[in-house]
Order: sequence, then structure tokens, then C-alpha cells
Amino acid sequence: MGRRYDTVSFLSDFGTDDEFVGVVKAVVRDLAPHVTVIDLTHAIAPYDVRAGGLALVRCVQYVPAGVVMAIVDPGVGTERRAVAIEVQGGEGVFIGPDNGLLASAVAMAGGAERAVALTNPEYQLAAPGATFAGRDVFAPAAAHLCNGVDMAVLGEVVDPAALLPGLVPIARTEDDVVVAEVLWVDRFGNAQLNVGPDDIEALGDPIVVRTRDPLGRESARTAARAEAFSGLGAGQLGAVVDSYGLIALCLDRASAAGDLGLAAGDIVRLAEAADGEGQGVTTPVELRMRPGAGR
Amino acid sequence: MGRRYDTVSFLSDFGTDDEFVGVVKAVVRDLAPHVTVIDLTHAIAPYDVRAGGLALVRCVQYVPAGVVMAIVDPGVGTERRAVAIEVQGGEGVFIGPDNGLLASAVAMAGGAERAVALTNPEYQLAAPGATFAGRDVFAPAAAHLCNGVDMAVLGEVVDPAALLPGLVPIARTEDDVVVAEVLWVDRFGNAQLNVGPDDIEALGDPIVVRTRDPLGRESARTAARAEAFSGLGAGQLGAVVDSYGLIALCLDRASAAGDLGLAAGDIVRLAEAADGEGQGVTTPVELRMRPGAGR
Amino acid sequence: MGRRYDTVSFLSDFGTDDEFVGVVKAVVRDLAPHVTVIDLTHAIAPYDVRAGGLALVRCVQYVPAGVVMAIVDPGVGTERRAVAIEVQGGEGVFIGPDNGLLASAVAMAGGAERAVALTNPEYQLAAPGATFAGRDVFAPAAAHLCNGVDMAVLGEVVDPAALLPGLVPIARTEDDVVVAEVLWVDRFGNAQLNVGPDDIEALGDPIVVRTRDPLGRESARTAARAEAFSGLGAGQLGAVVDSYGLIALCLDRASAAGDLGLAAGDIVRLAEAADGEGQGVTTPVELRMRPGAGR
Repeated sequence: MGRRYDTVSFLSDFGTDDEFVGVVKAVVRDLAPHVTVIDLTHAIAPYDVRAGGLALVRCVQYVPAGVVMAIVDPGVGTERRAVAIEVQGGEGVFIGPDNGLLASAVAMAGGAERAVALTNPEYQLAAPGATFAGRDVFAPAAAHLCNGVDMAVLGEVVDPAALLPGLVPIARTEDDVVVAEVLWVDRFGNAQLNVGPDDIEALGDPIVVRTRDPLGRESARTAARAEAFSGLGAGQLGAVVDSYGLIALCLDRASAAGDLGLAAGDIVRLAEAADGEGQGVTTPVELRMRPGAGR
Repeated sequence: MGRRYDTVSFLSDFGTDDEFVGVVKAVVRDLAPHVTVIDLTHAIAPYDVRAGGLALVRCVQYVPAGVVMAIVDPGVGTERRAVAIEVQGGEGVFIGPDNGLLASAVAMAGGAERAVALTNPEYQLAAPGATFAGRDVFAPAAAHLCNGVDMAVLGEVVDPAALLPGLVPIARTEDDVVVAEVLWVDRFGNAQLNVGPDDIEALGDPIVVRTRDPLGRESARTAARAEAFSGLGAGQLGAVVDSYGLIALCLDRASAAGDLGLAAGDIVRLAEAADGEGQGVTTPVELRMRPGAGR
Repeated sequence: MGRRYDTVSFLSDFGTDDEFVGVVKAVVRDLAPHVTVIDLTHAIAPYDVRAGGLALVRCVQYVPAGVVMAIVDPGVGTERRAVAIEVQGGEGVFIGPDNGLLASAVAMAGGAERAVALTNPEYQLAAPGATFAGRDVFAPAAAHLCNGVDMAVLGEVVDPAALLPGLVPIARTEDDVVVAEVLWVDRFGNAQLNVGPDDIEALGDPIVVRTRDPLGRESARTAARAEAFSGLGAGQLGAVVDSYGLIALCLDRASAAGDLGLAAGDIVRLAEAADGEGQGVTTPVELRMRPGAGR
């Protein structure tokens, strides 16, 4: 028998409008009644493996020892593998599809030390159709691991080096301009970028934030470096080091992403302010109305 | 004292925008601290007893032994009964309004063996108004049952044969056409029908799927029989045996219900493909644009 | 060591689209594994301290002994204090920002007996940025309190009399008209007012309900006093004593707030019906179409 666990941290794109999440938790409860399931989020956009992987990375240093089950699985029912991945000498086990979703979180947790494909039907639920792996494959695997079943009996060993890597967008610098990408827009409209404070230190304060609308027209705004949202004046765009150590574009009590028309995956160019570009002043590059402005 | 339980599986139309679900769980926690509540879903459309009953049926074979509390209750405060229904020699007890919501799940669990109306005010919370039965009647009943209180003291015995039956839509065959109904559209846009693979075996592969738009104009699509969503080509409608053993209309990584304009309760006609109707080819019966197409 | 607790009741404006709630619960689980977290609701509108405070008041008499953590915190990162407030000789501790959010619930629980500002960094998580107090300040405080850490070590003592009060809207009477305010519109469209049955007893039955549209034009409807939604005829507006003892405007299986165009914070004037204003009859003060009617 392996180590026992009593917590399953659970992230998915199942939403909560259907009973998918509830049924997965019912299966875990039935097989391993001592386990508490922590819902990280189930609102990852359907099939959005990248968004799910980024959310998992934001969570991973805070989840308790135990099983982390993440399911964003557009390839369910195909040849993509379902896997369990052990980290930190057994402190944690990640469960999910081998499609890159888990990769960055596993790396942040120290890297995969052991992995199996979940192929042993004795540790799965029989199902009339092959489409609900959360219920029939992943939940039973999580429960059996919590009960002390060794990973090795859940299926065939997989070389950790053969697991699918994640895709993490890397910022680059072009002619003193930092070309960043929006990783995440949260409920409050803060737009987290894939740059840290070191990456933009040379740009000074304020910085210029250039975005493009859907027609390719560029707009520019100045953003003040700030410690917190509420240090910003009304309507003043801020570049704040957020609670994950990354730069986020923010407004005080308003949506910066809405104001700038930004969504996850969009490109943002960060540059040094020229002499004429003062703190807190909006300096559009062109004067035509941007569609979507003021959204 | 009766048997004790430690799990309450909970389904409702309360949503999670208000604190209704939280207060019900607080009441259970207060009266029976050892109990874990599993949220199946709370996003049943308001007052939609049929949708709630169908969701409960999809869950019931996976819920752990214990109490199943389901509340979709348009008649709250009227003469409709609040009931507790015992199944499987006490393995499980269903709690909810006697309006048909519980009937199909109770039947699937083996049928009602004992039932009471929740009429004993000593096992309810006093309330200034009579409108929140989840908090004041159902939650206390669930908690007391978990504590080993025998059902018989919660209120008057009800003859199980007198409980309101559920309405389950039955498919029928007319002139070699299977007239089916959409039971459920899930988050991913899969449209579950009330037919299993046996019901459409005679139709061959592919099958023709006929739907009507709100103006009554019929369109037809061919659907390939497939094992999984991802076995379908891009844009190819599929008829997949879903994880509940029923036929679902699916697209790979897209919404079949959106594409076909289908919602729960809609009628779908399934027929054998004529010689000219090839696999994967869309064959609209008429060429006028359908409003809502491409939704 | 102080008293130990095993329940944290948790309300916030975090929503569940992001993983904020999950991470807060992960932190509590990591520090205090014996604790169960009850989610009251996380759908308070962003920054809406008043709505959060009212929801907390509706919950407070039902939450179990233990910690109540409420976070609606537009001033996070500023000089507003984070506090813990003890009530009822230690039966309960409220945790949250000192911005009025907790005040009415604390008062309903008997009043603040002891309070501290959460300033001791030894009982907080270190963070690269200062923006996620739920994870870094409030969750650790809740967990440590549950583990029996005395409140006094979490930070500096605060005089309970110096805590920010809540703003509770009080109804008033002008020329025999009760000027009330909508406190809450729930999922079912019931509009809870800040008046109880005693406040409108003199108005008789039915009463006249006057509302204003966004252009300031007044409409009037009669509302029947009723015991329950379902005692109302189809389309008949009702004034029901709701499950909190307050008057709510209701329709049977339909949204009264939608029908009347009401949202939280709107003013409603309640008056005695004149002779010509019969039960169940809609009597618009003016005949022009109201924009938004029938929403």
C-alpha cells in the first residue's frame, strides 16, 4: 500500500450548471469517505487547456498535500492518455489528461517523479458510453490513491519525460518594447500579464501600454506603477504587482480589461513614456473612436 | 433510533447567486455536524420539476448511501406535501416536495418502501414567514435523519403508492421514424435524447435527424454513429451513446444543440438515411435561412 | 490557547469563475485540516459592501458556532483595517474588512465584545503583491482561530466602539405613505423590502405599490397580502411576509422585480388603496408605455 491522502483539490471546465462536478464528488465520497474535496474552480472555459493550466499554476503552491485532480479534456475518449503523476516524494499526485494541462503545475511542484497511465479497468467504473472520464476514470483513481492504493496498480508506467509539456507564453523585448501577453482576466477586470516587475523596471514609471483593437488600430494609455488598486486615482490605469508576483493592469473599482478591451491571450506592448506622456494622462495614438471602448 | 447517515446529496433550483444553498447547509451543519453535504447541482431552472427530476436520475446510481435532498418546489407553502421516502431497506432516504421531482430517482433506486409527510413541527425550524421550506423543513429533516431519528417521528405515514409519479417522456415510432425528445442539453452542447442504441439500431448509420424551427419549418441533418465526440470530423454531427447509455447528438468541441437550435423538451425525428443522404453531408429539406441557425 | 472551532462560514464577492474561493479554502485546509468551510455565497456584486452586509444578516442566525469570514473589500491594500470580532463570549468570531460589511451581522449576533486588527505578519502568508487579502490575511486568521490561537496574538486590540458601523436603510412614513426600499431581489424575482408586516398593517389589504421608472414616471399596482406565493392568482402581485419576517413583493412562479422593473436600492411607496383600486387590478397612474415593462 502507498501513502494515504485526505484531500482532493479539483479543477475542471465542467461548470456547475450540470451535475458533473457533483457526480464526480459523489464517486469520490462513495469510494473514499474520509476525503474532503476542495473545488478550485470549475469555470474554465470549455476545452480551454491553456486557461486551465494557468489557473492550476496559480493554485498549486496553496493546495494541501494530497491529490490534485484537473480535468479540461477536449480529447476525452481518444488515444490521449489519462495519467497520474507523483511529485515531491509522494507529497502530491496530479491526476488528469496528458494534454499539457498539468505540466506547468507539475513543474512548479518540483517536477514529475513517477507517472502511470490510468489503464487498469479494475480501478474504474463501468459505463455504457465512453464520454465521462471524470466520473468513470479520474474520480475512482483519486479515491483509490487516497485509500492508499499504490499508483503502480492503476495502470502502465509512463516515462515522466514523455508527458506532454505545457505551453507557457514567454514575453520578449523588441527595440526596448516589452511584448507581453494577457494570461488572465479576473472577475474584477484585472488583466494579468506574463511579465514580472524586473521585466519592466527599465521602462520607468509611468509606462506606456499599447493595445490593438480588432481592426488592428493601436491605442496607447499610460499606466502608473502602484502598490495596490486603491492607490490609483479614479480612472487612472495602474500596473500593479499582483498577488502572484506578476504585473497586472488595474483600475480602482473598475475593470481595466473592459476599459482596454483586453481578453486572455491578447498582446500588450509596454514601453517607456516619452517626455510628453505624463502620469495619468490618456494619450490615444489616433483619435477615431475605438469600437468597444468604454465596454 | 434509526440508522445514522453521514452524507446528504443535495440538488435544487436555488442557484448560487443568493445564499439559499449556504443557509441550508449551515442548518444541516448546525444540527448534524458529522455530515458532509455533496452539491449535485443548484442550477436547475427555477420551478423546472422535470429538469430537476431528470438530473436526479442521472445522479442517483452514483450518490453514496445516505440522504438525497432535492428541492424544486413551485408549490412551496401550498397543500403539496413535503416528504421523506425510504428505499433499499434504509440504504437511502429521499427528501423533497411530493410533486413528481423524486419519483423517477426513487424508482431507479428500487422504489419507495416507506414514506412520511414532514408535518411534525418539532423537527422543523420556526420561521416568521412560510416560504423557505429548504431551510425550515427539508434541511432539519435531513439532519435529524442523519442523526438516527426514525422517519416515523417526522410526520404522518404516507402510502408509497399515493406519492405523485414522475413524468418521463417516452419515445415512439411512427412509420419507421423514431420520434424522440431532448431530455437535456449539457454545458458542452450535447443534446441527450430519450432513446437508447437499441431504439435506433434499425435505422442504420448514418441516421437522419429532423428538427423544426420555431416557425415549424423542418430541417434535416445526417448524424454518424460514433463512439466518442473526438471520433467525429470537424463539423460532423454525431449520434453517440453517452455516459448514461442514451443517444446524444454531439459535435467535436462545439455545441450540437446550438448548431441545431435544440433545447430540452424539443422533439427530434430520427430516420433511416435515403440513398442520396451521405455521411457527414447536411441536407436541408428547404433552402430558406432558418432563423437562429448558427447560434 | 483560546477556544477551538470546526466551522468557517464564508461569504464574498469573489465569484466562482476564478479560483479565488478555492485557494482561500485550500489555505484554510492546509492550516486547519479539521475545519469544514460552508460557502454562504460568493456572488455578491463586486465591491457591493451593502449587499454583502445584508446577505450576511440574512445568514447569521443560521450559521453554526465558529468563524464567519466575509470579504467584500474595495479598499484592499489601503489603510482600511482587517479585523476579527468576537461575539457571544466566544461562540463566534467574525473576520473581514472593517468597512461596515460585518456591522449589522455582528449587531444581530449580540454585538462586538472584543476585536483586533489583523496586523501580525506571523499569522499571515507572505505574498509578492499586496492584493489578495482573502488568501494571505483572512484565511490564515480563520484557520489559526479554529486551531485555538487566541485572537489577541493576531494583532492590535481595537476598541469595538471604533469599528465602522453598517448602513441599514430605514423606511419612513410620509403623509400615510410608507416609503420603503428594496433590500434584495432573489433568484426568483422576489423583492424584499425594508418593512415588516407591522409597518404596513394600517394600509389594509390590498395595498397600492408605487414605483418610478428611470425617467421618473410613476406607476402603481395593487398588491394583495398573501401567506405564500402560490396563494396568489396568475399575474396577481402579492405582498408576502417572507422567510425573514420582511415584506416581499412576489408573483406566483414569475419575477415580481422583473415585472415592476425593481432592483436592490430602488424606492417603493406603499399606500392604502382608494375605493376604486380593487384587488388584483393593475391601475397605472399614467397610460404611456413604461420602458422596461414586461421585462
